[in-house]
Amino acid sequence: MKKYDIIVVGGGPAGVVSAVTAKKYYPKKSVMLLKSVKDSVIPCAIPYMFSTLKKPEDNALGNAPLEKNGIEVIAEKVERLLPGKKTVETGGGTKYGYGKLIIATGSMPQVPPIPGIEKHGIYPILKDLKPLKELYADLKKAKNVAVIGGGFIGVEFADELSGIKGINVSLIEQMPRILANSFDEEFSSMAMEKLEEKGVKVLTNTSVKGFEGKDKVSSVILEKGKNMPADVVVLGIGAVPDTELAKAAGLETGKSGGIIVDEYMRTSQPDIFAAGDCAEKKDFFTRNKVNIMLASTATAEARIAGANLWKLKLLRESHGTIAIYSTKAGGLALASAGLTERSALKEGFDIVVGNAEAADRHPGAMPGASKMRVKLIFSKESGMLLGGQVAGGESAGELINTIGLAIQKNVTVTEIETLQIATHPRLTPPPTAHPLIQAAQDAQSRM
Amino acid sequence: MKKYDIIVVGGGPAGVVSAVTAKKYYPKKSVMLLKSVKDSVIPCAIPYMFSTLKKPEDNALGNAPLEKNGIEVIAEKVERLLPGKKTVETGGGTKYGYGKLIIATGSMPQVPPIPGIEKHGIYPILKDLKPLKELYADLKKAKNVAVIGGGFIGVEFADELSGIKGINVSLIEQMPRILANSFDEEFSSMAMEKLEEKGVKVLTNTSVKGFEGKDKVSSVILEKGKNMPADVVVLGIGAVPDTELAKAAGLETGKSGGIIVDEYMRTSQPDIFAAGDCAEKKDFFTRNKVNIMLASTATAEARIAGANLWKLKLLRESHGTIAIYSTKAGGLALASAGLTERSALKEGFDIVVGNAEAADRHPGAMPGASKMRVKLIFSKESGMLLGGQVAGGESAGELINTIGLAIQKNVTVTEIETLQIATHPRLTPPPTAHPLIQAAQDAQSRM
Repeated sequence: MKKYDIIVVGGGPAGVVSAVTAKKYYPKKSVMLLKSVKDSVIPCAIPYMFSTLKKPEDNALGNAPLEKNGIEVIAEKVERLLPGKKTVETGGGTKYGYGKLIIATGSMPQVPPIPGIEKHGIYPILKDLKPLKELYADLKKAKNVAVIGGGFIGVEFADELSGIKGINVSLIEQMPRILANSFDEEFSSMAMEKLEEKGVKVLTNTSVKGFEGKDKVSSVILEKGKNMPADVVVLGIGAVPDTELAKAAGLETGKSGGIIVDEYMRTSQPDIFAAGDCAEKKDFFTRNKVNIMLASTATAEARIAGANLWKLKLLRESHGTIAIYSTKAGGLALASAGLTERSALKEGFDIVVGNAEAADRHPGAMPGASKMRVKLIFSKESGMLLGGQVAGGESAGELINTIGLAIQKNVTVTEIETLQIATHPRLTPPPTAHPLIQAAQDAQSRM
Repeated sequence: MKKYDIIVVGGGPAGVVSAVTAKKYYPKKSVMLLKSVKDSVIPCAIPYMFSTLKKPEDNALGNAPLEKNGIEVIAEKVERLLPGKKTVETGGGTKYGYGKLIIATGSMPQVPPIPGIEKHGIYPILKDLKPLKELYADLKKAKNVAVIGGGFIGVEFADELSGIKGINVSLIEQMPRILANSFDEEFSSMAMEKLEEKGVKVLTNTSVKGFEGKDKVSSVILEKGKNMPADVVVLGIGAVPDTELAKAAGLETGKSGGIIVDEYMRTSQPDIFAAGDCAEKKDFFTRNKVNIMLASTATAEARIAGANLWKLKLLRESHGTIAIYSTKAGGLALASAGLTERSALKEGFDIVVGNAEAADRHPGAMPGASKMRVKLIFSKESGMLLGGQVAGGESAGELINTIGLAIQKNVTVTEIETLQIATHPRLTPPPTAHPLIQAAQDAQSRM
């Protein structure tokens, strides 16, 4: 039986980053990564494989970054983990011994038991090039595409597919609005408007009751017996932690469904770590157990796991996980970090909200300027930042990281008001009215 | 004599923001702003008035934001401050009484005593629409333009003017490289390369000895008797605090030349505050007195002054001022915060440097992707972030603000390594290799 100092199970972002980090911190140890999918893809860019990128293969997640770092990659599905024997066993029956094991099995797309969901032409989004190429081929012939689920995967698919000529795209969401978990109503509305401008038919408050068609889907059955033609259906309903192997091996899982881990990603079994979508997260604000499934979160955990395999090297002053996320819909960049106004109220926080808007270049007549809107949510008495949302041009994607750092460092409203920032006519809003600072000032005035 | 609760002297960013902030915090107080320049302009965008904006007037800084907030604006030059009588006197002999006075007189461009510098066609950059329109008209007829000074104003002017057809642009810098105060060598080189690609002739290690021409400049005399033809010369040599009024009124000024202020922008005289370029700054890292003249810094100070006129409301946990700055040269965005490697070594810090590079979209095949490079400078033993530099696409303009906040909050290398960030294919580098985090990891590996 071949033995490795470190075995990583899973070839997604958490797997790759934990392997690379482990090799950086422990360069003399042997590292091997087992991946069940031969041709993996960059998960976040899956929605952009259908018209933005030239071909699906442009989104391949090759083994080069691993091999370059001296990490062995084996494409075999793991069948069993045997913690007692410090061994993993693959589908082919091969056994590998480990010193430390990192479980990074990720998540599986949810496939709800809707009648007809097994038909051809209905695609849950797997992180695997093969089925995505089938979807790609199917879309070439499609006229009507239904995207089910108005979370970020659904929104991004609807946005992307609306850019393909000759396809009618519908986005179907059960809740009263899209992106409801990450954004407040006014931001959801902006996203919806942008999608509608691109020709997407957005149906909120709408449940899917079934799918019609012989072998292949031909239409989606909505509530009240309404039918909507669809040659292709994309499911973006959500995902659940993939903990099958871990559970079978006796690892504890939590209320959220994820593998229970401590501050340093250690599981209930010695020498076994877990990171990414398959690991349970503790909410930054409430310490409740939550499911936050983002590649950026997964890689942050993977760095902690990889660095701390033998000694706790990379100390963490972590209150827990924040949701921090950005996307683009119809040319509008949207980003969110921490609690929304709605989620803060739901959790019982006493809050003050600040809003501001300005051009993201200055003066507003600068070419390429677009409107930037910032909303910040503060704790009323303690003044601490709980969350923020940004809508505007592409710089929203990095501005949200300033907001995210501010949340993680317990920054207060007065600290943001007096923050020293860089501004430039071609790059940012004006120094006199940067909406990050103006939103804090707006909140402060009502405290 | 007309009396106001608050008088602000100066119509630049510090003046405007301190007036607006004062009105926000003390809505019942009367606020009046005196400006010496009738038609002021947005200072940061002055370089972009010559080809990027359609016309110079597009960069006007109108009185609307002031008047909208109920602030009276009077365009008169102030002649004297009389702290004993709590009065200011204008050139026309009018006197105005104040309860609190905010001095925001800004800075004046340096005009070194080079023989011939008084000739027509040589322009120090004043924040006044009138002379800028003269420069604009002069450029229409120009064939050869010399920009003197390779700091950010010089670089931005050279970049902008190189976009005007039929003009040859030279950039002349005394030091061995451009942008030497804000960037390390490798970033300076990138900027220089970009300018040269746009056709700018960059002359470093080159001093200007004089100017030739009858009334109007015709050429620049360089060292060793070399001559360079020039119909227009732009001076971007630097600026000095404009403290003439303050000094005449007996206010103390410091070693840097600026008005001495405390943590809350209070001067040596009761009821008189100062903010912006005219006020002395304390360096964040060394507590030395420094001249940092940036509109964003000025407005941060103005918010503190405006809020704290009667009571110290906006408390500050400030170690001092950091240089934080962004620009664009030939399509490359460049940004810097805190200490450079060179300045840190010069100040005697024991440092570790981390570097990283990645595409600023993911996968790299995403449209619009450009290379993003991040350099971080950490204190070796304490691990604290001292400075950072970014080069890349436009998102560098907001990424530097994450770095700036990290410096201001004494964030350490391990905190950046484990930071939770948002990433998106269309907006940011990949979660697996965001150069902000990779640069921290790179530094950590050498600590």
